[in-house]
Amino acid sequence: MRYILEHFGVAVAAVTGVLAARGKRVDLFGVIVLAVVTAFGGGTIRDLCLGSAPVFWVQDPRFLLNAVVVAVATFFVARLHPFPVTALLVADAFALALFTMAGAEKALSLQASPGIVVAMGVITGVAGGMLRDALTGEVPLVLRTQIYLYATAALAGALAFVLLNCWLPDVRTNMIAAIVITLGLRLGAIRWKVTLPEFEPKPDTPEP
Amino acid sequence: MRYILEHFGVAVAAVTGVLAARGKRVDLFGVIVLAVVTAFGGGTIRDLCLGSAPVFWVQDPRFLLNAVVVAVATFFVARLHPFPVTALLVADAFALALFTMAGAEKALSLQASPGIVVAMGVITGVAGGMLRDALTGEVPLVLRTQIYLYATAALAGALAFVLLNCWLPDVRTNMIAAIVITLGLRLGAIRWKVTLPEFEPKPDTPEP
Amino acid sequence: MRYILEHFGVAVAAVTGVLAARGKRVDLFGVIVLAVVTAFGGGTIRDLCLGSAPVFWVQDPRFLLNAVVVAVATFFVARLHPFPVTALLVADAFALALFTMAGAEKALSLQASPGIVVAMGVITGVAGGMLRDALTGEVPLVLRTQIYLYATAALAGALAFVLLNCWLPDVRTNMIAAIVITLGLRLGAIRWKVTLPEFEPKPDTPEP
Repeated sequence: MRYILEHFGVAVAAVTGVLAARGKRVDLFGVIVLAVVTAFGGGTIRDLCLGSAPVFWVQDPRFLLNAVVVAVATFFVARLHPFPVTALLVADAFALALFTMAGAEKALSLQASPGIVVAMGVITGVAGGMLRDALTGEVPLVLRTQIYLYATAALAGALAFVLLNCWLPDVRTNMIAAIVITLGLRLGAIRWKVTLPEFEPKPDTPEP
Repeated sequence: MRYILEHFGVAVAAVTGVLAARGKRVDLFGVIVLAVVTAFGGGTIRDLCLGSAPVFWVQDPRFLLNAVVVAVATFFVARLHPFPVTALLVADAFALALFTMAGAEKALSLQASPGIVVAMGVITGVAGGMLRDALTGEVPLVLRTQIYLYATAALAGALAFVLLNCWLPDVRTNMIAAIVITLGLRLGAIRWKVTLPEFEPKPDTPEP
Repeated sequence: MRYILEHFGVAVAAVTGVLAARGKRVDLFGVIVLAVVTAFGGGTIRDLCLGSAPVFWVQDPRFLLNAVVVAVATFFVARLHPFPVTALLVADAFALALFTMAGAEKALSLQASPGIVVAMGVITGVAGGMLRDALTGEVPLVLRTQIYLYATAALAGALAFVLLNCWLPDVRTNMIAAIVITLGLRLGAIRWKVTLPEFEPKPDTPEP
């Protein structure tokens, strides 16, 4: 189950990596690098912090094949038929939901405590996109208010997963429920432009 | 001892992560992410490089609780009463001193060689702040001259710790002495604007 | 063999870290930090992902000595006699070629599958330079088209190494051949300004 989630997540994250390269003067190989970093970043940090070495994509090289093939295909399709801007946001929402659950479930399977299960879910969900944005010189999506409850959706999904596991024994059903929660919150927040309170848009004192 | 240092360091680093979000259009969750990255970044890189897995905050979830509670509290306090700009610099100086010693002492306890003890001290001290600055789109504090002997203070503290351990058997006293050295150098450098020689402020040749 | 490659790679990468600090208002310590990150970044990520802990420069502190001495020497030489801009590109090409083979050979020695050997070569080759560029606020060299087949040269070298190992039993000769391929492609691409197809320099739709 986590294996399938992770393959789907890697594929959609690779798509977002390619789309984020739009207009950045990046060549084909740079696009593949961005796709792979986005697809593997979160899971790699999760595996390293949990002490699960070697990391998932070294243990199973099919993840690498998946990401590279999807990236190359997206690159050529996007050159022919430009995607709308919302395609990046929607693909990113799917990657967020799938990776969050893959991260939470892996931490749970390694007997981590509930707080760590939630944290690993959020980290796995958001880290790949953060690295992608750092490499393309954007303020990371996760830090911007106009991006509408990005990591909060991951947090809600991971919390729901931990709470559901207290009452319902079927981890697989709980994973699907949590994915629906994350995806629904994220897509709903994009659709209706919901935001959290913002931190001082205009500072009073000048920076040193 | 290292446990207490690390909890204090995590708390003040979380404060700096929140203060660095000022004026960056970051929402509450983004603020928590910045706080956690700043608080855990250095120690995580230290533990990974030393092969001490899982990393410290996965082994003891109280670190996560500490960072999140401090971040949320700082967020709401800072919205009511804006901190002066120097609050960020002073809190950062404390995080630097505490993390540097926590890093050096952990490397020592794992029988690392003296050069690695010093390097781990510096890395643990500066990495969290570097990640925070990279995520908020600043040139990292550690790389800027106007920030006054940032990493040099960490280096001096870590070197002092290694040298003191050659003569004095009491690691705890040596840690306190080293913290005082780092903190004194850093706060003194901020107060009197001491800098190291700078590398060519105006390049002669254009970038390609 | 890998040990010698890695020491040479660390030295030239440290030089590029120092040269990249040019005009960035970085002090001596910041320069050392940039040099060390550039020199150790790729190999550290490789060792962490392969589960080879502690990482190479913790196991052998001479790498740290090498990087720091080279960085300090380059800093003072560069203040007296400014290097031409191409010095950075040429030193970076050597670091790319040496690190790519050191990464591929280490993955091979740990019985990784061929795809992972290639990926580890590329990661080890490019990651240090990417971190250096991220810290100095540049769009990473590896992502820019005007930088001429940067990572593609690493990919070609790593692929050649894997293919040559299928026919020729002498790993050492194959490493040298692969280094020549990477270096030749990279320097040739700089000399004749060869590029890969670029991804949509002008986006049709505005960013959100």
